[in-house]
Amino acid sequence: MNKRIRFLILGIILLLFATGAAFGQETDTAKTLKLYSQAFDMIWLVLTAALVMFMQAGFAMVEAGLTRAKNAGNILMKNLLDFSVGVVAYWAVGWAIMYGADSLGLFGTNQFFLAGATSSTFRDWMFQVVFAATGATIASGAMAERTKFSAYLVYSVFITALIYPVSGHWIWASDGWLAKLGFHDFAGSTVVHSVGAWAGLAGAILIGPRKGKYIKVDGKTSVKAIPGHNIPLAALGVFILWFGWYGFNPGSTLSGTDLGIAHVAVTTTLAAGTGAIGAMVISWIWFGKPDPSMTMNGALAGLVAITAPCGVATPLGAVIIGLVAGLIVVASVELFDKVFKIDDPVGAVSVHGIAGVWGTLAVGLFGATSDHLGLFYGGGFHQLGVQALGVVAVFAWVFGISMLLFGVLKKVMGLRVSEQEEIQGLDIGEHGMESYPSFQIFQNQ
Amino acid sequence: MNKRIRFLILGIILLLFATGAAFGQETDTAKTLKLYSQAFDMIWLVLTAALVMFMQAGFAMVEAGLTRAKNAGNILMKNLLDFSVGVVAYWAVGWAIMYGADSLGLFGTNQFFLAGATSSTFRDWMFQVVFAATGATIASGAMAERTKFSAYLVYSVFITALIYPVSGHWIWASDGWLAKLGFHDFAGSTVVHSVGAWAGLAGAILIGPRKGKYIKVDGKTSVKAIPGHNIPLAALGVFILWFGWYGFNPGSTLSGTDLGIAHVAVTTTLAAGTGAIGAMVISWIWFGKPDPSMTMNGALAGLVAITAPCGVATPLGAVIIGLVAGLIVVASVELFDKVFKIDDPVGAVSVHGIAGVWGTLAVGLFGATSDHLGLFYGGGFHQLGVQALGVVAVFAWVFGISMLLFGVLKKVMGLRVSEQEEIQGLDIGEHGMESYPSFQIFQNQ
Amino acid sequence: MNKRIRFLILGIILLLFATGAAFGQETDTAKTLKLYSQAFDMIWLVLTAALVMFMQAGFAMVEAGLTRAKNAGNILMKNLLDFSVGVVAYWAVGWAIMYGADSLGLFGTNQFFLAGATSSTFRDWMFQVVFAATGATIASGAMAERTKFSAYLVYSVFITALIYPVSGHWIWASDGWLAKLGFHDFAGSTVVHSVGAWAGLAGAILIGPRKGKYIKVDGKTSVKAIPGHNIPLAALGVFILWFGWYGFNPGSTLSGTDLGIAHVAVTTTLAAGTGAIGAMVISWIWFGKPDPSMTMNGALAGLVAITAPCGVATPLGAVIIGLVAGLIVVASVELFDKVFKIDDPVGAVSVHGIAGVWGTLAVGLFGATSDHLGLFYGGGFHQLGVQALGVVAVFAWVFGISMLLFGVLKKVMGLRVSEQEEIQGLDIGEHGMESYPSFQIFQNQ
Repeated sequence: MNKRIRFLILGIILLLFATGAAFGQETDTAKTLKLYSQAFDMIWLVLTAALVMFMQAGFAMVEAGLTRAKNAGNILMKNLLDFSVGVVAYWAVGWAIMYGADSLGLFGTNQFFLAGATSSTFRDWMFQVVFAATGATIASGAMAERTKFSAYLVYSVFITALIYPVSGHWIWASDGWLAKLGFHDFAGSTVVHSVGAWAGLAGAILIGPRKGKYIKVDGKTSVKAIPGHNIPLAALGVFILWFGWYGFNPGSTLSGTDLGIAHVAVTTTLAAGTGAIGAMVISWIWFGKPDPSMTMNGALAGLVAITAPCGVATPLGAVIIGLVAGLIVVASVELFDKVFKIDDPVGAVSVHGIAGVWGTLAVGLFGATSDHLGLFYGGGFHQLGVQALGVVAVFAWVFGISMLLFGVLKKVMGLRVSEQEEIQGLDIGEHGMESYPSFQIFQNQ
Repeated sequence: MNKRIRFLILGIILLLFATGAAFGQETDTAKTLKLYSQAFDMIWLVLTAALVMFMQAGFAMVEAGLTRAKNAGNILMKNLLDFSVGVVAYWAVGWAIMYGADSLGLFGTNQFFLAGATSSTFRDWMFQVVFAATGATIASGAMAERTKFSAYLVYSVFITALIYPVSGHWIWASDGWLAKLGFHDFAGSTVVHSVGAWAGLAGAILIGPRKGKYIKVDGKTSVKAIPGHNIPLAALGVFILWFGWYGFNPGSTLSGTDLGIAHVAVTTTLAAGTGAIGAMVISWIWFGKPDPSMTMNGALAGLVAITAPCGVATPLGAVIIGLVAGLIVVASVELFDKVFKIDDPVGAVSVHGIAGVWGTLAVGLFGATSDHLGLFYGGGFHQLGVQALGVVAVFAWVFGISMLLFGVLKKVMGLRVSEQEEIQGLDIGEHGMESYPSFQIFQNQ
Repeated sequence: MNKRIRFLILGIILLLFATGAAFGQETDTAKTLKLYSQAFDMIWLVLTAALVMFMQAGFAMVEAGLTRAKNAGNILMKNLLDFSVGVVAYWAVGWAIMYGADSLGLFGTNQFFLAGATSSTFRDWMFQVVFAATGATIASGAMAERTKFSAYLVYSVFITALIYPVSGHWIWASDGWLAKLGFHDFAGSTVVHSVGAWAGLAGAILIGPRKGKYIKVDGKTSVKAIPGHNIPLAALGVFILWFGWYGFNPGSTLSGTDLGIAHVAVTTTLAAGTGAIGAMVISWIWFGKPDPSMTMNGALAGLVAITAPCGVATPLGAVIIGLVAGLIVVASVELFDKVFKIDDPVGAVSVHGIAGVWGTLAVGLFGATSDHLGLFYGGGFHQLGVQALGVVAVFAWVFGISMLLFGVLKKVMGLRVSEQEEIQGLDIGEHGMESYPSFQIFQNQ
């Protein structure tokens, strides 16, 4: 009997060890699983951030291609420098304003110069800085072919250090006042695209149209189309932007283990496609032929519009949102160009601002998830109302502060190059070079 | 004694709890491991799909660069729109035909408009749609500089909704009749590239050569070379395509935890390199100088050829497959251009069709894995025979239905622009614009 | 009593089974965790390798854009072929020399033709071959617009098969003599960039300046600036390179579960930005206007400089390293061009060589981790000394062997095209084509 009991005790002791070892292994497993979770987020966000960064090349090519040869080097320098200046400004100040400890739901207050950053801070900063730079670079298109390079540099600091981060805080920081109201902007139709567009709109208004754009003849103003000098470059830019958008939208899941990633990619793809189709069809009807510049802007408008609702719209919703964006963008370009007579050489305000508004409101119409149920899915007007409020608030902030900024710049250092420089081209005037010195370029261009 | 027994019972109960807890944790661990498995596939397929999507930019640049300046905007519009139209058509119909419930091994029959889609359906659709669009866009090169934009749009719908999905179903759907015979086409030498090429071949035959390409002088036909207008653009396109191919082939493992991914990347790299070398050497020998257009097409031919066997060929096999593809593509371009007198402005039929056939057959020659053992590795003629059957079947289907489609389009709406429009350029005729309005362009170009 | 005991024994047996099952599951879990660890590394390295491969497009566009239209096709062919030839040479020989079994810390001795490769060998080769090709392609810029295509091909074989792998072995193979001394070059400021630059420097010296670059008038040599023909192309190249660098540096963690990835991405971003700013400011001060070519080279210099210390420098350190690189590169370009009179058409020696030296030394100054503590962080002169030794050793090896190689090539087959060919352009002379046949190109260009 004693032997049996001793045998039993021995068995239990062995089992205790075995179970203990299993627990030890369990703890190791749990640690490894946590590391892997972090690794998924790390590689997902760094790779998608790289894709978003590449959109800078897309903007540069679109803007250079859709403007004149004599200003190509200047617009490229603006695109390169707003990013270069922007990353430093967003490191020193912008990130802190956007994601530092909240004050009143309005702005952040610490983490300047990434103080106290951990590996996950670096990861999140890397993903966010490329969005800030995207917002910043949009204005260069609206103000192209006449804005002083030095003034644009100052603007680049302010947009990435202050203007973009403040409204970004409202929406994307957990304590932001719009976030708390339930405003939903998945990847930044408003946070990124509209912000850049409203800044550009303020600049375009204050700086005035390009010389020769609006000519008064017998008391009537005739509007001259100034075609872009290199359509293949612009088309390349559109493809690059579309490509980069697979970082912009799917990356905005902010998690590499979110199984909703593909849904976002699908809605993004469909809206881009129908955006191009919509703009092509309407330009065909209105102008008699399918217009390449309009069609390209249609694809971009579809992408901008789906950026807010890409996570909550169905594929069918995305098809409609994109199609409408394509129609809207052509009408908007015509409206600004011919009715408002605001000279926006590449249509940036229409593509990023107006299509951005449409996409933001579309959340309140096409939202098909329980937490963001839009009007068309039985969710009533609540989400739509919140979306409209956010659109108005961000417009008021960005357009207001940008008017002030560009107004001060105009007084202090001048916003616009001299008339002679504008005629000769900003490449020679601002940079002492030509972009295509081997080629015969027409002078009237 | 009783005490001891009670102690023992207590011990066992404790152990039961402990083991139970361990099992509970086990279950959580198993769930997490399953999620991670899905996350690997999700981020792998979405990121590689983005790379494949970017190949659209590559095709656009290659085709624009290798044709004339006066038609650049038109070819870019075709490239942008076949993708835009293609994603909608593949969403509505194409996916269902290709991957819906099988009927007789010939085509799928449900999931139209992605009905019933889950997150893994979205993931798979995202990966597949960019392959469909790749197939679609290939024909634009073969039919460049003379095809009506409107007719090309109709073609784009049919190739992505019907033509590509049917033969795709045969090979890549598990119940497809060629799949069941053991036909192996890892990433689409035949499924994607040949399909686009055979459609383009049918179009090029029915539409006829460009004006001025073949001139009859004294009863003898002289063949005029019509050089591309922008070689840097074409070279950029080749680099973009090569880059995107790291999505195309490695992504076709369809799993982010497949450790064979790198093997695929290695064979892809080597074949592309030797494809360029092969074409360069043969053009040097035949034409006296190493020809850039031919060499670029050689790199692409190497990529197309390795696409089917990239998973089953050894690195040495890949070196040979690429080299032969480079040699073949130059011979094929010459053959179509000078002997068959079929005008294919960018050599699309040779690069994607002929090199695609070579690559598909190469599976039966260089297959070095037990399930796909090629002739040179002691596998006999079986695999080679199946590969040949697939090549013939896909050619018959795609070439046949495309002849019918383009034949009907020719009757109903016309395939070709007017002679005057062709001389003036399709940019002006089809789109009312110029791609390079600031530049001096030679009229005879 | 017996019943109780039997009950107890039954309990223990059940527990043994349960624990055994748990262990079995544990083993499965451990296997799965190991597979996932391998999968992280696999997808991380293949995707970042693809990004690095895409840098070939960046180099091609920068070099084509910054040289003349008449030589564009030639420089593109060199860029395409050094990669194509390079992947074959690195497969056959280069990898073995670099990572084969060590001999005396000087070079590797086995694994020729990837003999005995496993899936992890393929993965590592894929990541390494694109670095080798990056090193190789740098020289083409320094020797642009006058080097024979055939001679350049021979060079491409030697750099990827021998020159690059030997010094690479010293630093990146675990048994390399510099690695053992503690030399730290995270992603290749020296291993990759300086190697390409020193080879290019040797070539540029031996081949002499382009015709018309240095003109003697009255005993005094005047230096003629020969501007690049296509600045948008060059700018695109810079953006592509910056984008690709997110593969180059973060990928060099060599592990997809390294949580330091984002830190590397952040320092890379900041240094690129301040590099552009530094070069812009200094060119503005020196030349009166912010110069686009210099600014673009500044961004690249910042990227090259941060490549060695990106893992050990703080964000502030990166800001300074980049800024200094931007200042240095402008001074260096001027020095080589005006004082040393070594004609380097795209500034490759300054961007990749001089900024590479700066970045390598910066490890010894700004290193902020315990294992690589730089002078400014209290680490004394030790690390700095080791870094300097590595810089000198690699220069001696690469410059020496390249002088020998190009010297022999000059004797045996000639390095330089004929004077007539140089005037006419290498596109016509070497390749029998024009890059822009539709455009009016100025003859003096």
